[in-house]
Amino acid sequence: MGVIGGRPNPVVAAPMAGGASTPRLAAAVSNAGGLGFVAAGYLTVAQLDDRIAEVRTLTSEPFAVNLFVPGAPGDVADVARYAERLAPVAERYGVTLGEPRHDDDDWAAKLDVVRARAVPAVSFTFGCPDAEIVASLHEVGTEVCVTVTSAGEARIAAAAGADVLCVQGMEAGAHRATFLNDPASPTGGELIGLLPLLRQVAGAVDLPLMATGGLMTGADIAAVLAAGAVAAQLGTAFLCCPESGAPAAHQRALLERSYPTTAVTRAFSGRPARGLANQFLLDHGPHAPAAYPEVHHLTRPLRAAGDPEAMSLWAGQGFAAIRPMPAADLVATLTAELAAALNAATARWAP
Amino acid sequence: MGVIGGRPNPVVAAPMAGGASTPRLAAAVSNAGGLGFVAAGYLTVAQLDDRIAEVRTLTSEPFAVNLFVPGAPGDVADVARYAERLAPVAERYGVTLGEPRHDDDDWAAKLDVVRARAVPAVSFTFGCPDAEIVASLHEVGTEVCVTVTSAGEARIAAAAGADVLCVQGMEAGAHRATFLNDPASPTGGELIGLLPLLRQVAGAVDLPLMATGGLMTGADIAAVLAAGAVAAQLGTAFLCCPESGAPAAHQRALLERSYPTTAVTRAFSGRPARGLANQFLLDHGPHAPAAYPEVHHLTRPLRAAGDPEAMSLWAGQGFAAIRPMPAADLVATLTAELAAALNAATARWAP
Repeated sequence: MGVIGGRPNPVVAAPMAGGASTPRLAAAVSNAGGLGFVAAGYLTVAQLDDRIAEVRTLTSEPFAVNLFVPGAPGDVADVARYAERLAPVAERYGVTLGEPRHDDDDWAAKLDVVRARAVPAVSFTFGCPDAEIVASLHEVGTEVCVTVTSAGEARIAAAAGADVLCVQGMEAGAHRATFLNDPASPTGGELIGLLPLLRQVAGAVDLPLMATGGLMTGADIAAVLAAGAVAAQLGTAFLCCPESGAPAAHQRALLERSYPTTAVTRAFSGRPARGLANQFLLDHGPHAPAAYPEVHHLTRPLRAAGDPEAMSLWAGQGFAAIRPMPAADLVATLTAELAAALNAATARWAP
Repeated sequence: MGVIGGRPNPVVAAPMAGGASTPRLAAAVSNAGGLGFVAAGYLTVAQLDDRIAEVRTLTSEPFAVNLFVPGAPGDVADVARYAERLAPVAERYGVTLGEPRHDDDDWAAKLDVVRARAVPAVSFTFGCPDAEIVASLHEVGTEVCVTVTSAGEARIAAAAGADVLCVQGMEAGAHRATFLNDPASPTGGELIGLLPLLRQVAGAVDLPLMATGGLMTGADIAAVLAAGAVAAQLGTAFLCCPESGAPAAHQRALLERSYPTTAVTRAFSGRPARGLANQFLLDHGPHAPAAYPEVHHLTRPLRAAGDPEAMSLWAGQGFAAIRPMPAADLVATLTAELAAALNAATARWAP
């Protein structure tokens, strides 16, 4: 029984890079018997090291760290065209667009940090680390999880030695974890619903699976556990906890249901991600290039201007069921709900 | 406890118009403790009457009938352009394209048949019957189910007096049940995964919900029961049963996994539907107008030419898990699997 799947409660607070995943949130969830995450993406190496240390001051329970796997640069001309398109928007907000540089999110140095800190579990997004890296993590006792969006990606992760997979359905908020950022696919590969994807991945590899994508209630968690998952990872559900670092405007848009629907877009970061369908997403999504993190850097000043119409309001398809409550209470609520849902279904259909 | 949701086994064989849903299949599923369907779509009124009578000779258990709700005609010029596009394809297959006529699938006369036959349950697809029609079905003791793909459609169905809703996730094979055939939406409205859609619909109306979309195994059924559904409707799962009337080439494509993915397309019928992504779907889907059933009639001779590359190979996202076995065995297998899945999850997480 590993870290993921071996917790008293099968509730994992998803890594949400960019601010939402605070050490307080991670520790609160782990202390409540679930599993909290430090989201390494966009942090400096020193910040990552500090956050891991901070979580350890707040909990003696296991926790996990999520790393972004670096990818290839996007097309420079495409990025320049997108920057031209956004120039009038920047002028309107009185900001200067960011420098659309390519980088690897300090991949090697962040790997060094998680190895040096021997964190209990590490998950990967946007790709699969090679077998040597997986082995080096195993050497320091770290459990390795790879996030996948297809059976093909699951096979790659299994071959690299992953201990557990995070299976991300098309319902998921924020970035899709697809290994490739294929310009030919605006949605980042085939959009597969969580339940059929779990089935496809279970048919392809023999590894424990954590389910993620659109899960908000204990009954949702009960569903994926009944489908065979060993744990459920929830992001959006934790965005309005007091421990969340998500911007107030983001939380307000979720709680007030300011936008009725979500959509997958490259508008904000250059990688497909699901967010509330605000004006910026609708206006620019169809024109955004597959260039990550170039577009992320380019749009950062726009997103920081404070107008929700131009912010990346990440949200999964279940967002309307969001509940603003302390993370520990949310974990306890979800755990009670999932037990009730399983008991009710079992009493009726498998007495 | 109604017909749907009140059966010994929560397994419903979906209505599959166009041949797959035979009276033998419906009766076999109902006799096995599930619920079988007669698919009225495309049948003549006399055929519908005959099939209902035939089911009654094969089972004394409850069964259901599905009716297509008629919609508005498509744009004639758009249909003509699509016919021009398909002319060389027809020539290649040595067939003449069908007459792209609009019709209402004999709506009024088919309603008369189901009322006269007082069938136990009727479900509707492509729209919601008005309250008077629902009341007229209630008068003869018929349970009324409306298929929905959004919370908004669920509210309309509840207001019309529906007894139960069939909640169709984006994973579902064949036609999406969206009420409107909106040319602006190539996929027939927002593509929402089954679990978040169940949550959204449960938040909007207080009716029992049957779940459908991508469900293939007992563990899949256990998942939606744990999520709160009262029954699970499976279409693709029954396509390769010996009682299925699906064309041999369709069954072969599913069993041999001739195509790796599915996609939603208007290419074959003029309404969004999910099928295996064959050449015709890829070539013509992006150009097909929102005109149903005009495009259905137009492409019929092409689809009947016998080449799987030009057939509508309807399939849900879970199709790779298809099992060719007698329908009664499949219902028994699914029922045993769902009980095992619920028991395992409950033993681990809600002992």
